[in-house]
Amino acid sequence: SLSLSPSHMLFPLLDKLREKRIILASASPRRRDILARLDLPLEIIPSKFDETSLDKSSFPTPSDFVQENARCKATAVSKTLPVVPEQKETLIIGADSVVVLDGKKILEKPQDQTHAKEMLHSLSGTRHSVISGVCLIKIAADKEEKCVTFAEETHVQFAELTDEVINSYVDTGEPMDKAGAYGIQGLGGALVKGIEGDYYNVVGFPFHQFSKTIVELFGE
Amino acid sequence: SLSLSPSHMLFPLLDKLREKRIILASASPRRRDILARLDLPLEIIPSKFDETSLDKSSFPTPSDFVQENARCKATAVSKTLPVVPEQKETLIIGADSVVVLDGKKILEKPQDQTHAKEMLHSLSGTRHSVISGVCLIKIAADKEEKCVTFAEETHVQFAELTDEVINSYVDTGEPMDKAGAYGIQGLGGALVKGIEGDYYNVVGFPFHQFSKTIVELFGE
Repeated sequence: SLSLSPSHMLFPLLDKLREKRIILASASPRRRDILARLDLPLEIIPSKFDETSLDKSSFPTPSDFVQENARCKATAVSKTLPVVPEQKETLIIGADSVVVLDGKKILEKPQDQTHAKEMLHSLSGTRHSVISGVCLIKIAADKEEKCVTFAEETHVQFAELTDEVINSYVDTGEPMDKAGAYGIQGLGGALVKGIEGDYYNVVGFPFHQFSKTIVELFGE
Repeated sequence: SLSLSPSHMLFPLLDKLREKRIILASASPRRRDILARLDLPLEIIPSKFDETSLDKSSFPTPSDFVQENARCKATAVSKTLPVVPEQKETLIIGADSVVVLDGKKILEKPQDQTHAKEMLHSLSGTRHSVISGVCLIKIAADKEEKCVTFAEETHVQFAELTDEVINSYVDTGEPMDKAGAYGIQGLGGALVKGIEGDYYNVVGFPFHQFSKTIVELFGE
């Protein structure tokens, strides 16, 4: 949505955030790179939660599914943190992204090259969505926990792709670790005609909504 | 616009393009980074054309202005190339980007910090445009030249910014070399609620339209 947001205060808050312990519960180099632009001290502790363990069909909407995946990832990491007497205030960030076709068909990472080609065929010429779920767990010095989750949707208009284009793209290897079998920040950017919404959400992390939520969690 | 494009064939064409001489007539590290994803042999020859020399007010639209700037940049570089008997087929890429407010007010790079703050105040809470012009000059082995120019517009929805946010952002130094005084690919991404169109166009180079035009110029 392109409606106005209340003014947010992320930049003035950054110095305060640098005193916290901030943990990204994800091994995704793309999420790390997006968060790195805030120049925060980021620990990477990939979650051991198996993101294929939830039954997609049991959730009312894809947005519910990604938020629950994100919450499970962040919670799994919070449970591994050692209990120390005087701990720093800690923020754990969990995230999950999927591509959604026709408002309901969820595409995750392809299993192999054939699967990647099938996904790209199904996305060719479509306007589809990328939906990311994020869970932020704030653990205060007195161990009180606060958990916030949200989802963000961005629409993506794909070019029509020929077999030759799909085969050449899959040969580059880029699609294999990416939801929907493409990376907008790589060669896959040439396949995307345009987007509506937060670009970073398509890369894998909804930067604007995250920034706003951080201000709500840590601002006065 | 999010209408369908004809299928394009950039990936199958890349091997052929690697045999050409490709010159980017721009010193912008952001344009270089976007083109670098195609893994083409890119020469950087920044144009000596003074982009402040054209009179903005003499053009019917901002789109005409950026296309003429791009054409002048590319042409200036083509004139410096030495004449060799058997030259490789050569592509020269010129580009120019501006931010456009209310469909007509053109914002280029800020002159100083005060100017940057004024620009960000004027963009706060707005839906504005980023318009890039690109000029591609193809010089065949027999020296025949073909020149194509196009412009691409992307809409950007800015968050409402307080004085404190604007001052903190300008203090980071990021706005100073950027049209409209922000960089969506940097910290400035936190100021952007969403976009409509090609993200790379906001960074400074319309990657999708470029890819299509390259196929028209070099495809069979």
